Amino acid sequence: MNQKEEVCQHKMLVTRDVLEVIQGKWRIPIIVALTFGNKRFGELQRDIVDISPKMLSQELKVLETNKIIKRKLYDSMPVTVEYSLTPLGLSMKKLLDEILDWGVHFRKEIIGK
Amino acid sequence: MNQKEEVCQHKMLVTRDVLEVIQGKWRIPIIVALTFGNKRFGELQRDIVDISPKMLSQELKVLETNKIIKRKLYDSMPVTVEYSLTPLGLSMKKLLDEILDWGVHFRKEIIGK
Repeated sequence: MNQKEEVCQHKMLVTRDVLEVIQGKWRIPIIVALTFGNKRFGELQRDIVDISPKMLSQELKVLETNKIIKRKLYDSMPVTVEYSLTPLGLSMKKLLDEILDWGVHFRKEIIGK
Repeated sequence: MNQKEEVCQHKMLVTRDVLEVIQGKWRIPIIVALTFGNKRFGELQRDIVDISPKMLSQELKVLETNKIIKRKLYDSMPVTVEYSLTPLGLSMKKLLDEILDWGVHFRKEIIGK
């Protein structure tokens, strides 16, 4: 394997890790919603229009396992849970901005608006 | 809906379009491989270690439909097909760099290498 191929393989490996974390229809929208501030479950459900409660709680668990978000329990009646981005989650800001920038460009090219 | 929520909803919409294009395990690796230059089917198969021929041809068709890549036929015996990035595909460079940058950071934080 020559040097160029080695660089290519390394890039593939790193890219695959990122795709594992952000894959699927819901994780990036959840992270985008949390860039607007800490949110409760119900607020996230309202922000992400057609996500089911089951899917939202499943994806929140995966994001927590990957240390992208964290949960804080409030000892109220009933108990309330608030989600927020960890420093690792906040470090995705530039990536999210790039996804948005390219998305605007893509929409202009493909659907002309 | 207040102004902040409207901005959030617009970002969700744009983000979802991008995720449609780059979703799954294979599309970003295919695009990354093509940033190293035009490639034939067999070269892409060799670059993307565990992708099946069926999956590769399926994902190439989707990327072509989304105008991210294009195909060029060479009138050789047998006919050879070469894939390359379109201008829209090339415009993903900054997004790919950001995915890689964040991926390196994520690996350091999570697996310490």
